[in-house]
This record gives sequence, structure tokens and C-alpha cells, in this order.
Amino acid sequence: MTKPPPHRTIAVVLAAGLGTRMRSRLPKVLHPICGRPMLAYVLDAAREATGQRPLVVYSPATAQIRDVFADEADFALQDQPRGTGDAVRVALSSLDDGATNLLVLNGDKPLLVAAPLRSLMQRQMDATAAMTLTTFVVSSNSPWGRVDFGPDGQAERIVERKDDPGRAELSAFHANAGIYAFDLAWLRGAVPRVEPSSASGELYLTQLVEIACKDGCPVATIDATDAAESLAHVKDRGDLARASALLAERIRSGHVQAGVTIQDARSAFIDDTVEIAEDVTLEPNVTLKGVTRIGRDSVIKSGSYVVDSVIGERCTIWGSVIEDSVVEDDARVGPFSHLRPGAHIGAGAEIGNFAEIKKASLGPGTKQHHFSYIGDAQVGARVNIGAGTITANYDGQRKHATRIGDDAFIGSDTILRAPVEIGQGAITGAGSVVTRDVPPDKLAVGMPARIRERRPPPDAPERVATASDTPAPPEDVG
Amino acid sequence: MTKPPPHRTIAVVLAAGLGTRMRSRLPKVLHPICGRPMLAYVLDAAREATGQRPLVVYSPATAQIRDVFADEADFALQDQPRGTGDAVRVALSSLDDGATNLLVLNGDKPLLVAAPLRSLMQRQMDATAAMTLTTFVVSSNSPWGRVDFGPDGQAERIVERKDDPGRAELSAFHANAGIYAFDLAWLRGAVPRVEPSSASGELYLTQLVEIACKDGCPVATIDATDAAESLAHVKDRGDLARASALLAERIRSGHVQAGVTIQDARSAFIDDTVEIAEDVTLEPNVTLKGVTRIGRDSVIKSGSYVVDSVIGERCTIWGSVIEDSVVEDDARVGPFSHLRPGAHIGAGAEIGNFAEIKKASLGPGTKQHHFSYIGDAQVGARVNIGAGTITANYDGQRKHATRIGDDAFIGSDTILRAPVEIGQGAITGAGSVVTRDVPPDKLAVGMPARIRERRPPPDAPERVATASDTPAPPEDVG
Amino acid sequence: MTKPPPHRTIAVVLAAGLGTRMRSRLPKVLHPICGRPMLAYVLDAAREATGQRPLVVYSPATAQIRDVFADEADFALQDQPRGTGDAVRVALSSLDDGATNLLVLNGDKPLLVAAPLRSLMQRQMDATAAMTLTTFVVSSNSPWGRVDFGPDGQAERIVERKDDPGRAELSAFHANAGIYAFDLAWLRGAVPRVEPSSASGELYLTQLVEIACKDGCPVATIDATDAAESLAHVKDRGDLARASALLAERIRSGHVQAGVTIQDARSAFIDDTVEIAEDVTLEPNVTLKGVTRIGRDSVIKSGSYVVDSVIGERCTIWGSVIEDSVVEDDARVGPFSHLRPGAHIGAGAEIGNFAEIKKASLGPGTKQHHFSYIGDAQVGARVNIGAGTITANYDGQRKHATRIGDDAFIGSDTILRAPVEIGQGAITGAGSVVTRDVPPDKLAVGMPARIRERRPPPDAPERVATASDTPAPPEDVG
Repeated sequence: MTKPPPHRTIAVVLAAGLGTRMRSRLPKVLHPICGRPMLAYVLDAAREATGQRPLVVYSPATAQIRDVFADEADFALQDQPRGTGDAVRVALSSLDDGATNLLVLNGDKPLLVAAPLRSLMQRQMDATAAMTLTTFVVSSNSPWGRVDFGPDGQAERIVERKDDPGRAELSAFHANAGIYAFDLAWLRGAVPRVEPSSASGELYLTQLVEIACKDGCPVATIDATDAAESLAHVKDRGDLARASALLAERIRSGHVQAGVTIQDARSAFIDDTVEIAEDVTLEPNVTLKGVTRIGRDSVIKSGSYVVDSVIGERCTIWGSVIEDSVVEDDARVGPFSHLRPGAHIGAGAEIGNFAEIKKASLGPGTKQHHFSYIGDAQVGARVNIGAGTITANYDGQRKHATRIGDDAFIGSDTILRAPVEIGQGAITGAGSVVTRDVPPDKLAVGMPARIRERRPPPDAPERVATASDTPAPPEDVG
Repeated sequence: MTKPPPHRTIAVVLAAGLGTRMRSRLPKVLHPICGRPMLAYVLDAAREATGQRPLVVYSPATAQIRDVFADEADFALQDQPRGTGDAVRVALSSLDDGATNLLVLNGDKPLLVAAPLRSLMQRQMDATAAMTLTTFVVSSNSPWGRVDFGPDGQAERIVERKDDPGRAELSAFHANAGIYAFDLAWLRGAVPRVEPSSASGELYLTQLVEIACKDGCPVATIDATDAAESLAHVKDRGDLARASALLAERIRSGHVQAGVTIQDARSAFIDDTVEIAEDVTLEPNVTLKGVTRIGRDSVIKSGSYVVDSVIGERCTIWGSVIEDSVVEDDARVGPFSHLRPGAHIGAGAEIGNFAEIKKASLGPGTKQHHFSYIGDAQVGARVNIGAGTITANYDGQRKHATRIGDDAFIGSDTILRAPVEIGQGAITGAGSVVTRDVPPDKLAVGMPARIRERRPPPDAPERVATASDTPAPPEDVG
Repeated sequence: MTKPPPHRTIAVVLAAGLGTRMRSRLPKVLHPICGRPMLAYVLDAAREATGQRPLVVYSPATAQIRDVFADEADFALQDQPRGTGDAVRVALSSLDDGATNLLVLNGDKPLLVAAPLRSLMQRQMDATAAMTLTTFVVSSNSPWGRVDFGPDGQAERIVERKDDPGRAELSAFHANAGIYAFDLAWLRGAVPRVEPSSASGELYLTQLVEIACKDGCPVATIDATDAAESLAHVKDRGDLARASALLAERIRSGHVQAGVTIQDARSAFIDDTVEIAEDVTLEPNVTLKGVTRIGRDSVIKSGSYVVDSVIGERCTIWGSVIEDSVVEDDARVGPFSHLRPGAHIGAGAEIGNFAEIKKASLGPGTKQHHFSYIGDAQVGARVNIGAGTITANYDGQRKHATRIGDDAFIGSDTILRAPVEIGQGAITGAGSVVTRDVPPDKLAVGMPARIRERRPPPDAPERVATASDTPAPPEDVG
């Protein structure tokens, strides 16, 4: 026995059609599903099955695809929409040497996984076939093309529904899933022989079945009925919605089996790119998007919407929007707060309601309980930020920074006109407008604020000024 | 052949019952479904099928109906709850001349559409029948009345479940859908012959089948099994919930097929009265109510609740409540903002978080990024509204207006005591309380605010005052 | 005939297993479902069926159970995880005298109700059996243990799936639901005879069937197929999610049939502990948790999250979070407001958007329409609380109280430095910082605020000061 030649299979993914039934200007395969473009899932499955970088056939109408997936695939341009047979012809001219087999599949199958592709490749090799079709059993009223088998059980041709009046008499049939394996050498010879359809003038890949039969070359089939869900393609937005629902369910099930409590599966919206640790609880109506990680024992309560953020362990996030931010262990946020990009919330910090934080770090144990805006700021540990506090960070031309030292006490309705620094242990009076730096352990009061001594001094037990005729620095940590 | 006389069919909609199984003081047919009272859908179907204004039979207990639908139907009052037969008697006395046929149906069928009514009318005319019944096939344990056919295949009577012990032996039967067509001339003679039920003393419409048979008049039937979903009636709140879910699904499917991306069908709550353009994206958990329109390419993100409002093209609405307002093209709102009735947001304007706007217009490009309240105001273009800004529009007795010119700069925590006008290009200092008009290009600072020159002057590159010992107008556009 | 001896049945609930397939450190039976630990539902069913306090068998790994249910059950500690047979042995040693029968069931069946337990107890008594098994019919691929019946129709043994290769040939079989009744006297003698499983070394309760048969004692069965849903047990988080969904649906259906309108069943999240009156409307996406009551005719609009609170009649709650608070009749709250623990909202009061209230009572008709924070306060009737108002209730060491009299007028951006009292009918100027009490009908303006006369006096029609050069008290009730 001689050793068989090494096989190398490249997946060709067809994505030249805009998908007019989607009624959209966005190419169909770029429509997002659970946080990623539809095509991403197909490329994942193709790459996982073949171990090779896939080749995507695109068209001028779908040129955006090339930009989006530049790092993940090779590309071949089909200039004219001349059908799937023509698309494969284009792919052949772009293939490098060394491939022995091709997988050909459409880019509109976001539910596809590697397993049926692997089975198909294996079948193709076992049968040393010219081509292998993936089939699955459907009921007679299904719109899929039917695989017509000859007396010897070999597939002889694909019969489209409109050419198949006898189909209604069947109770079920083997449908062509539109996922093929080809012997590359044979394919190079066969593709030029595909003839244009008399109806549309396009070249159809399915004609290759008849060409192989004419040549006496083996055409194999493999049944993938048990993976039928993964074979569905998306033609219109109804299909898109169904595929999204199925994929979302797959993602949720994975998390649940890994130890996440999802109180209401139907309202947990989790992107494919999200990681969630064990013993995390998701209340109903939670959205987790993008590159987001949730740490162990955290609770994400209703109405939360977290994008591209890292949440630590034992955190509570409630009804808040968090974008491109970090929340460290044991912190809590919400309800009704908004961490805008660049917020960094320290361990054990407490963000209450109606708080807005942008490009700002808050140290461990710091409290921002009420309505207030902290932007472009570095805030130390154990700081109290009073209700109504505003970092006035913009002078009409540029943004300026605010720094607040550890243990500082920012009184209600304080305006911090940046650039400004509040020293460690300093206090600002309620309603003050702070326009100059406040040294450590001093008190700033008034509008504009003037600097005074704290009375009693910081080391006394009664650490907050209560002078009767000056605005004292009452606080409202809530 | 003589030309048949012109037909004119009037729909009589029975709505005299309060619907006690609903456990509500609101008449059953006024319970809302997808933003409209249940009866509205029935009247739509009736009007569309007949081309005529329907006639609604109501009762003292359901008199509210008359107010709600005054413009859409004629009305006849059934004084006493004496059954469906009596209700039709009342209707007959209110009909104007010229009608040749009647459709009779109950008002508690919100899923009804015109198609089965049209088929019924056609069948009635084709059969020149005294009356025509709509039937549909149900399984033997169904509670519906059963149509009993004679040996000649003509309906002979309706057998209610309690009088129909043999029903259990059937596997299925033809149910009476409770939707009838009548020859009006025949009906006028037949209705007085209906006799009270021995059990309830009420007059039942179904008795007319037997009367017609006794007279030897043809009783036709038409099968509407393929429209069975639309025949369901609402008896209790469980039925109401099911009907609502089905109608909601119809509405959503319509939008999806028309090119709207609905990321999660189960949490898109869209009234029957809403219009959505192509390529709009709805994230999960979005409510669109009343007379609302969403323009092309807009994205409605999670948590948004839009009522009676117009949203332009390419807008982003996020987690905000918008009532009776207009948002122009390219504007964005939210998360956590509230447009109360009468807000008008200009093209490209940016409303951030915790912003409240009421009876106020904001010009193109204006920014209100943070917590603040703008009410009873006209705000120009490219204005910056600082965090904490408040239009103090109420003096305890009346509301007063605020006007802000183009390119003005409203400092953080400014209070604008209305009536007041801020001139074009003017600036208010952080924390200022503005009680008098500010001329164009001036600076107002302090509490109460005094007018100063802007330093440097407005045409200088450094346009914002920075005088060291006065509260400068720092801003926080965020 | 002699009178049968009085029966007394005690339910033994097995809860010694941690439930490792849950992948959690929390004991399985403590995982919450619809607001209560899973075990609570089982104890309810057991108590309702037997009329007796149940006995829970726990282990060192599940010792938390004892703390959580201290008031609701008796407890027996199983030191070592030696199987269900051993658990019953432990239970027997803890039982007081006087019981004649035992119910034995697992604590991981949260859907259980009293009815099948009652049927089981009745069957046990009617049959004067040694033990009675609850069975239900399942299809052949079910993982449940199969009850093997002898030629006389008596159960002879339980065959686990792995020992039951012939099962696949059956189309269906009687499964052992794992809920048993025992004659206590017989059980005391039989339990010591259970032998360790050769595979695991554990003692299995199911062996008692064979022991009874060997003894010639009657083993009865009762079929509970019609209650099959209630027999499901929770092994992993997938089961937990399914049980939660079913229980949630039961709870919702109960409310709907009692006259509550739930606009979208799938997004109404209602704990088992919530009471809702007739003619209440729940919009989509509403969460009602803990000991919460909603009064008649109230409307709970989308996004509301109510915990441990009482809402009166004819209230409107919109998109707000309410914790441990009371809202009286005809009040409205929201959208985007937060009642923190201890808020008490008077009849007809109006809480608008971005309002935060904590440990504070607001009198009837009081308005807090905009962003503001009221904490540790008593607010009278018909008070207007301006936008931006802050009760500065914390001095860095202690919380202090604020009192506001009836008909007072709190200007926009007022800071109330507690402890402080605003007299009846008093007014605070916009932007004022109030550090001392304001007598009735006086005006406080400035920072710190000084007391002035209201001009014109309070009994004049024009009641609000308008002095041209002082900050007047403009208001923004919105």
C-alpha cells in the first residue's frame, strides 16, 4: 500500500451577492448577529474545519467585506454577478498551489459549525470523489433544491423546486444544503464546461453534478440531517431574526452550563464575544456586548447594558450603561448611571444613581452616589463626591484635567473648573465654584471659592467645618 | 340574463356585552391591543370588506364605545341585555335604506381581517342564501358551537357544547365562527320569529338557522379553516394576552419583511400605528407607541420608549423616553434622557444622559450632554448647554419662556430665570443665576449674574474669558 | 367495623446534596426561583399536603439551609453523604412520636404542588401499603428510573437507566417520580436492611421496593402523569432556567385570570410573593419583587423595577426603581426615578425624572419633577421641589434631617444643609445654600442664604417675590 498524498483543503466562501431580499444597502453577509457580522461565523467554521485561511469571493457591490475581514481571509473579486459557477471560477484563479480539495459554501449560513464540514471533507476523501454534496432530509413542501439519485444510489443532479412538479407527491426528500467538497484537479477541468442557465444566463455550481456523472466520476453525498439547524441560510430579515435567535440561544446555553445563572433566557442578550465567570447572576433584560468580561459572583441587574468593558468579581451593576470601561472587584454601579468610555472604577467604589463618568479613574472606596458628572479626572481613594458635582472640563476649545486627592470631600453642587487639583483630605463647600487648586486638608468655599482652614483641623475627631456664617461643607453621600 | 341588483352590505358589530370574564370595569372591546382598542381592528376589517361604515350595537354598560368610535361607525343602542338576536333586531331598526345584506359579527375578534369577511359575502351572494355561516374545523374537545349539517349538506342548526354529548365521539367538527351574512329582506321577517331561550330568556341569533331551514330558504356555509387564527375571540385576559401576542407578531413581521432589523422580536413592542423606514435597526427591548415614525438608517437602542413622535434619518436613540416630540436627522439622544411633550431636537443635535427637555426647540448642532432641564425654551444652533443647567420657567403662577441665541455658551449649573434671553454668542459663567437678558457676545457671571465683556473679544481665537479672579465660564460638553 | 387509627403524615425533604452539576458554591436547593429559594416551594407543598411541619435532612455542605428555613421546618443532619437510604435513616432518628406515615421527597422539585402529594397519601392509606410510589408515564428515551411491575401489577423494583438495556424497545414506561409514602412502622424495620450499592457504596431508598416485596408487604403506586410538569427536578442550571420559566408562567397566569392586564407575558417578572389588584396594567418589561403590593387601577409602565414596596390605587409608575418604599394613591413616579429604601410618597404626589428619594416622606400633592435628591427628610403637602435641589444630609460623620412645611417653594438648585427646617409657605431662591432654618412664609436667598420678607405677602394674589435686584425664587415645576 502506498501512502495517500497529503490532503490540503481550502474553503471558498461565496459572498458576492448583495442580498436584495434583505432590503438593505449593507451586504447581506455583513448584517450583524450577536455582535459579529454573519460572515464571521462562516469563516470561523471554515477555518476550524480546514485549518486553513478561507478564500472569500466578493463583488464590487460587496467590497466592504474585504475591509472588514482583511485579516481573516484571502479574497477574490468576481467582477460581474454571473452566478455561483462563475464565482468558483474566480476562486480557482486566485488559489495558490498546494491545495488538493476545495470546500465551497455560501457566506449566508451563520449557524454553520465545523462538524458537518469535517464530515463532508472526510466523506470526500473516503470516497475519492470528484465532488461531494451535503444533503439533509426535508419535507416535500420545502423550497430547497432536491438531490436526484440514480438507480445506483449516486447523486445525478439537483432539481430546483420550480422544475420539480412531482415533488409534492413525496413525503420528504434529500435537499442540497449548498455545501460542497471538490477534488481540485477535477474541478479545474470541470468548471469551464458549466453552461449558462437558459433562464438567467448565470453559471450554476449545481450543474457540476451532471458533468461529473457524464464523466463517470464519483459524486458522493453525506447526510447532515442531524445538523440541519446549522445549514439554514439567511435570505431575508425574517431568516436573519430566526438565525439570531438560534445563535443567541446557543450562546446562552453555553454560559448556563458553565455555571452562570440567567434568570430569564429570553431577555439575556449576550454577544458571541463575551466571557462570563461561574456563579455570575444575570437578571432579566441584560445586554452584554463586544469584548466584555464579567468576574465571578457578580450580579448584573435588570436594564444593564455593558459594552467592551471588564467587570470584576463580586460587583453589582444595576440598570446602567457601561461603555469601554473597567469596574474593579466589589464595586457597585447604578441604577441609572452611565460609565462612558474610559471610566475606571476602583475596588469597592460605589456609583449610585444618575452619575456620569467619562475618561476618569475613581480610586478604591470612592463614593459618587448621586447625580453628578466626573470627566477627564483622576480621583483618589475614599473620596466623597457630593450630589450635583460637575467637573467643568471644557473651556470651549480644549478639555482640561481635574485631580482629586485621597480622602477629599467634594461638597454638593461643587463646580470644579478644570484644570484644577483638590489636595488630599481637602474639602469643598456646598455650591462652591472651585477655580484654583485647593491644598491638602484645606477648605474651599464660595463662588469663586476661597481657601480657608478646616475647623477643626483634620486630625480632630470632628473633622468637618461648621463655622456658623460660612457655607459649611455638608455632604450627601446618601 | 338579467343583471343582478346591486349589492350593498353593512357590517353590524355586536358590542353590547361588558365582558364580565375580563374582570374589569372597562368594556371588553375597549381593552387595548398594540395601541388600539380591540374593537378598532374589527371595525377596520368590517369597513375594508364592505366598503361601508359599520353599525355598532352597544348597551348602557358599554356606552363609552360610542364616544371612542364616534367618527368611525354608526351606533344602535340595545337597552336590555336580551341576547344576540335582540341586538340584531335593534340594528335592523337603525339601518338606513339601501342595504341588501348584513354581515353580523362580534366585536371581540381583534385578529379578524377583511379576507374571510369578503369570502363570506361572496359566498352569500353566489348562493343567494337567506344566511351564510362561517365555519372552521376544530378538534372534538373545542368549546365552540358545532354546525349540524343535514343529509343534503346544508347547515340545519348550531349545537352548543352543553347540548352536544355526542361530540366527544367525533375527531373534529365544523365550528360556528359566529360571523354571519344575511339577506336583509329575509332577516327582517325572520328576526321577530326568534324565541327566547328557555334557559336564559335571551334571544339567540343561531336560532335563525333553524328558522331558515323551516322556511326552506338556503343556508350556505363557507369554510375559513385556513384563516382560523383570525377567528379567535377574546373572553378573558388570557385570550387578550394571546391575541395581543399574535397581533404584535403580525406587526413585527410586516416591518421585518419591509427591511427593518429587529434584533429580538420578542422584545420589540410596536403599536399598530407606527411607521418604520427601511434599514432602521431596533435593538432588544424597544417600545414604539402611538403615531410614531422612524426615519431611514436610524438606530433605536435598548430601553427606548417612543410615543407619538417623529424620529428623523440616521438618528441614534438610546434608552430614552420620548413623548410627543420631534427629533431631526442625524441627532442622537440618550441614554437616560427624557423628551417630554413638545421637544424639538434639531438636525445633528446631541442630547446626552439625564437631560430633560419639555416644550422646547434646540437648534441644529446644539449640545446638551449632561443632567439639565430645558423647558419652555427656544434654543438656537450650535449652543452648548452645560451640565446642571436649569431653565427656571415657573414663578409659582405662570410659565415663562427662555430664548438662547445661536452659538451661545451656557456654563455648568447656570440657572436661567425665565423670562430671559441669552444673546447670540453670549456666555454664562459656571454657577451663575441669570435673571436679566444677556446681550449678544457678552458674559454673565455671578448670583445674580452681572453682565461683563467677554475677554478676549469674540473675534479673537481664544474666545472664552479666563480672568483669574472672576468665575470664568468653563464648560463641560463632555 | 372499627374506626381506623388517626393518621399523621410527616414530610421528609432530602436536601443534603450540594448539587455539583449546578457548578455553584450555593447549595442547589437555595438557588432562587421567582424570588424564593427552590426549597421554599417544596416545603410549601409538603406543609399544605400534610398539615405538618416538614423535616429537612441536610448535610455539612448544605448547612446554610438550616439558617434560611429555621422557622419553617425541623432539621436532621446527615453527616456523611451515604445516599438517600441513609438520609431517611437519619430522619427516622429525629422524628417525634405520633407520626404514622412518612412522605419522602427531594428538595430539588420546585414545581411540586400539594395535589399529587395528597393523592399519594390517600393512595397509601387506601391500600394500607408498606410504601407507595408516585409514577408517571414517560417516553422510552427518558433518563428516569423505570418502575418494574410484577405479573400481579404490583411494583417489584426500580430499574435505573444504565441497568435497563431493554428500555429502548418500549415506547413508554412508568417512571419513578422519587416521591414516596411509607408506613412508618414498616419503614423503621426496613431501612436497616438496605444494603450499600456495589458501585457507589451508597444506600438507595429505591431498594425498599424489593425489600417490601420480599416481605410480602403491599407496594402501591399512584399515577401522576397529569401532574407531570410538577414532578420535574433540577439537576443543573438548564433545569433551573426551565423550572423558573414554568413557575413564572404559573404566577403570571394567576394574575391574568384575576383581572390584571399583562401586556407582554414574556417580560413580566413577578415574584411569588407579589400581590396585584384587579385592573392593574403591566406594560412590557416590568419587574415586581419581594413583598410588593400593587393597588387597583395602577399602571406599571415599562422599565419599572419594584422591590418590597406598596403602590396604591390609580398610581402610575414609569421606568423607575422603587425599593422598600410606599407610594400612596394617585401618585405618579418616573420615568428614570429612584425611590431608595424608606421613601414614602403621599397621595397625588408627582415624582418626575431623575429624582432620588431616600428615607424621606413627601406629603400629598407635593411635586419633585426634575433631577434632585431628597434624603432623610420630612416634606409637607403641596410643596414644590425645584430642579437640582439637594438635601445635604451628611456632614462627613452623621446624617441629619431636613423638614419642609406645607406649601413651601424650594427654588431650583437649592442646597438644604441639614439639619435645617423650611417653614410652611416659605420660599428659597434659586441657587441658594440654606444653612439655617427659614421661618414660615419667609424668603431665603443667597449663599449662604439670608432671610427676607416675601414680597408681596403670602396672602396677596401675586405670592412670589420679584424684587428686581435680588435672586427671585423662580421655580420649575415643569
